[in-house]
Amino acid sequence: MFLATAGLFAQEPDKQMVRLARLVIDSTELDRYNEFLREEIEASVRLEPGVLTLYAVSEKDRPTHITILEIYASEEAYQKHITTPHFLKYKNGTKDMVKSLELIDARALIPEMKIK
Amino acid sequence: MFLATAGLFAQEPDKQMVRLARLVIDSTELDRYNEFLREEIEASVRLEPGVLTLYAVSEKDRPTHITILEIYASEEAYQKHITTPHFLKYKNGTKDMVKSLELIDARALIPEMKIK
Repeated sequence: MFLATAGLFAQEPDKQMVRLARLVIDSTELDRYNEFLREEIEASVRLEPGVLTLYAVSEKDRPTHITILEIYASEEAYQKHITTPHFLKYKNGTKDMVKSLELIDARALIPEMKIK
Repeated sequence: MFLATAGLFAQEPDKQMVRLARLVIDSTELDRYNEFLREEIEASVRLEPGVLTLYAVSEKDRPTHITILEIYASEEAYQKHITTPHFLKYKNGTKDMVKSLELIDARALIPEMKIK
């Protein structure tokens, strides 16, 4: 139990799970999709110590093209994340808005990196 | 001058410049490339208040495929960044190792997002 804090998670970079999600969204549903995603990310980062970040960007020239940098403290943190009510609300609510989804397992060059 | 601190930069998310860089590296040069990139990122984040993050990942299945999430406090911070000695050392040192480079201007869904 003592280990289950965000601070100590962040000091075990070897256990981190890092992924890029690349999505293409139905243009007619983009505003609704973005609201679902924003709500899901804010809840995940607030409620789950093991969700270290979900940094989502849209391309300026193609706003329907979204990339999310996902960093979890561990594989276990990710497995827990995908059972949460806020994740399931997002996943079920947006399934008809997502035209394509690519999940790319990745390694961080500098796992200790933060955002100032 | 008072405004030129990392803390206050970070509180002006509207001015941020966000970009994805997607690179493919010559596989025979990958280790050397990664050392150049690591050194450049560490110097940039340490020395430049306006470089908010440079989060680099390689794909597990294709380690020559690198994505960098770049967040600068402003366009001006980026323009300054590309004149620094550490950036120029990286750029000149790796120019024959980079097989392709795609720079994608982006918008953050939640500009205040951090990494725990």
